[in-house]
Amino acid sequence: MTKIVTPGELAQDMRAAMRAIGAQARAAARQLANAPAEAKTRALVAAARILRERADDVLAANARDLAEARTKGLAPSFLDRLTLDAARVEAIARGLEEVAALPDPVGRLLARFERPNGLEIERVATPLGVVGVIYESRPNVTADAGALCLKSGNAVVLRGGSDSFQSSSAIHACLVAGLREAGLPEAAISRAPSAAREAVGEMLEGLGGTLDVIVPRGGKSLVERVQREARVPVFAHLEGVVHVYVDRAADLAKATKIVVNAKMRRTGVCGAAETLLVDRAAAPTMLAPLVKALLAAGCAVRGDEAAQSVDAAVSAAVEEDWRTEYLDAIIAVKVVDSVGGAIDHIQTHGSHHTDCIVTEDAATAERFLKEVDSAIVLHNASTQFADGGEFGFGAEIGIATGRMHARGPVGVEQLCTFKYRVRGDGQTRP
Amino acid sequence: MTKIVTPGELAQDMRAAMRAIGAQARAAARQLANAPAEAKTRALVAAARILRERADDVLAANARDLAEARTKGLAPSFLDRLTLDAARVEAIARGLEEVAALPDPVGRLLARFERPNGLEIERVATPLGVVGVIYESRPNVTADAGALCLKSGNAVVLRGGSDSFQSSSAIHACLVAGLREAGLPEAAISRAPSAAREAVGEMLEGLGGTLDVIVPRGGKSLVERVQREARVPVFAHLEGVVHVYVDRAADLAKATKIVVNAKMRRTGVCGAAETLLVDRAAAPTMLAPLVKALLAAGCAVRGDEAAQSVDAAVSAAVEEDWRTEYLDAIIAVKVVDSVGGAIDHIQTHGSHHTDCIVTEDAATAERFLKEVDSAIVLHNASTQFADGGEFGFGAEIGIATGRMHARGPVGVEQLCTFKYRVRGDGQTRP
Repeated sequence: MTKIVTPGELAQDMRAAMRAIGAQARAAARQLANAPAEAKTRALVAAARILRERADDVLAANARDLAEARTKGLAPSFLDRLTLDAARVEAIARGLEEVAALPDPVGRLLARFERPNGLEIERVATPLGVVGVIYESRPNVTADAGALCLKSGNAVVLRGGSDSFQSSSAIHACLVAGLREAGLPEAAISRAPSAAREAVGEMLEGLGGTLDVIVPRGGKSLVERVQREARVPVFAHLEGVVHVYVDRAADLAKATKIVVNAKMRRTGVCGAAETLLVDRAAAPTMLAPLVKALLAAGCAVRGDEAAQSVDAAVSAAVEEDWRTEYLDAIIAVKVVDSVGGAIDHIQTHGSHHTDCIVTEDAATAERFLKEVDSAIVLHNASTQFADGGEFGFGAEIGIATGRMHARGPVGVEQLCTFKYRVRGDGQTRP
Repeated sequence: MTKIVTPGELAQDMRAAMRAIGAQARAAARQLANAPAEAKTRALVAAARILRERADDVLAANARDLAEARTKGLAPSFLDRLTLDAARVEAIARGLEEVAALPDPVGRLLARFERPNGLEIERVATPLGVVGVIYESRPNVTADAGALCLKSGNAVVLRGGSDSFQSSSAIHACLVAGLREAGLPEAAISRAPSAAREAVGEMLEGLGGTLDVIVPRGGKSLVERVQREARVPVFAHLEGVVHVYVDRAADLAKATKIVVNAKMRRTGVCGAAETLLVDRAAAPTMLAPLVKALLAAGCAVRGDEAAQSVDAAVSAAVEEDWRTEYLDAIIAVKVVDSVGGAIDHIQTHGSHHTDCIVTEDAATAERFLKEVDSAIVLHNASTQFADGGEFGFGAEIGIATGRMHARGPVGVEQLCTFKYRVRGDGQTRP
């Protein structure tokens, strides 16, 4: 008699498999927390070398993924994110080496104070524990997330999208080989056993209390689902409704350069500007040149009445535009009443991701930097610098707009927690 | 016709009332985040003065609470926690002044780095936002939590227990009067309009997205419920299964003093020791004196076979004892195989709160401090120092054993998040 496996039994199997992976990752995390910095570095350098050695295998696996994706008729932008070539594999290997070269974040002394009774108290960085990463089609996230978690002494459970499953498997195998060379537990960089959807649900439940935090990497619907359903903390941003405010005291040439770069350098990144705010006092001289520069750069402009009066190509913005993350060559333009009006607009319509002021007035700049409650606030620089690499973090596992624990680009430092070490000489409490 | 109010309508009313309080607190938080440090200090100093002026009113309110509590036949320990007298009111006033005198945590420079392209990046502390505090019978939590949140630039929504409602109201009125004197929004220190149970449920739901974090202050069942049901992050510890490990290289006199103090100074605090671990190599010389000192201090001892052999008064420990937070004059005693055995025992049975090693061997101490994954690890000092005041934080809103954001005693610094300020001179990203 053939045994018939019911969907319920399959779900049961997946739950058991994922929880076993979680338990192994937890055990690996305990070992990693006390692993010497040198072993973690060695594992990452070895993984980079092995990835280069196996580049052909990785590209072959990627070709299989791509062939399947094409038969499914997936969009060209999706196929582009999925595609690897020799240069991209080399970039992944270099990324592993860059993370390897970062200073070890574990054990950093964060604060130290001595008490009147002679107790010496230190706050020292320790790993978070086990990180869950849920991502979509980009195979490179396998290496980036694996490397950042290992460097910060955390175990990681990776669950990549089904369309990149074979590419990610091939890259993951290189990371595991690196761990093995360095004598570190292979479960330190674990992976869902298949791309089955049920694995995501199990991770959102926390793998039976195993996961300390979940990081979603992907589109808005993935992030939305993770933020809604996760039973463990999440590092993420849902969207980047990013503003550039051009103040009356702005240098027009600087403002134009920053606005066009912030919007048009790459329109699909979360740090791309989505709304331009112009000080009413600056509008007579600056609004027209700014709007025309954007139009000339190929950007569609949706504006308030003042912006529409600049050029017939400017269409009317509706209320929805002030809250929209276009991720495209479109910008919303509005005149506001000085820096106070800009701050009000950003606090009301923004997403607390990244916002910028362009001004030569230091006091106005300081007020904006202080009062705008976003993860990243910039003065006279493009919002496209909102990136862990640009911040000098080596890489980032994502950008967070939440207020707990991590905010802005999340690098190895924010993948740590801390503990207090107290040294005494027999002190008791009266 | 008399209108009959259904329970459903009452719940509806409470939901609306709590959400309105949340919205006002959120608005107050925006103002507070930019309030000068001096105004916050002034509000707290004024509140202390007003509390002293109104001490008679506060004591009268407390007498009414106590009279009601007695008719309900509540336990003596409960009545003690609820009781205020002139000295306790003065202690509350002094507590307000101590928090007022702390350095302002908002705007602290946490990190600063300059990038090769000339960008100057700063990580600066900012308030978390709105804190929800759910507590039981101690009226002083009203003042402590209100003061810590105000100092850290956060608005707070307080929900105290019904049995201390009138005492807490009287203290809360002093805080609000202090805010008024300093020109700060009264909603900065908000309070549930009644002690209705439904208010707790609303807070656990987050008051319509208003609360950034919840801090429960009270017994295990309250903390358990908050950790289980809260839809927002929680700073808390469920229990403190606190260990003292006496190593072979311990100084016996020091060890005895520390063990007795850690267990017996106050048995009801979360930093009180619950388990004594003794190195097998030290047992022949140290186990008996340690156990006898505990018995002499009035502590009941439950031990493994070795501990039982010391004295007929030692009863047999069962498996459950190794995981129990007695909060009473009871201790579990066990012999372990060196520091490695102690670490294994603590990692397996502990609650990641506070753990201590007594040894004169520096290398052994460092291993324990590194490998024991608890919020607080101590060397040669009593575990009863696990307290924000003892750490120099002025006061604490609680002790956290979670790994996200705050860990150990939570003072004004951990009630802050951060943001990145980036200063440029026209930089754009290539």
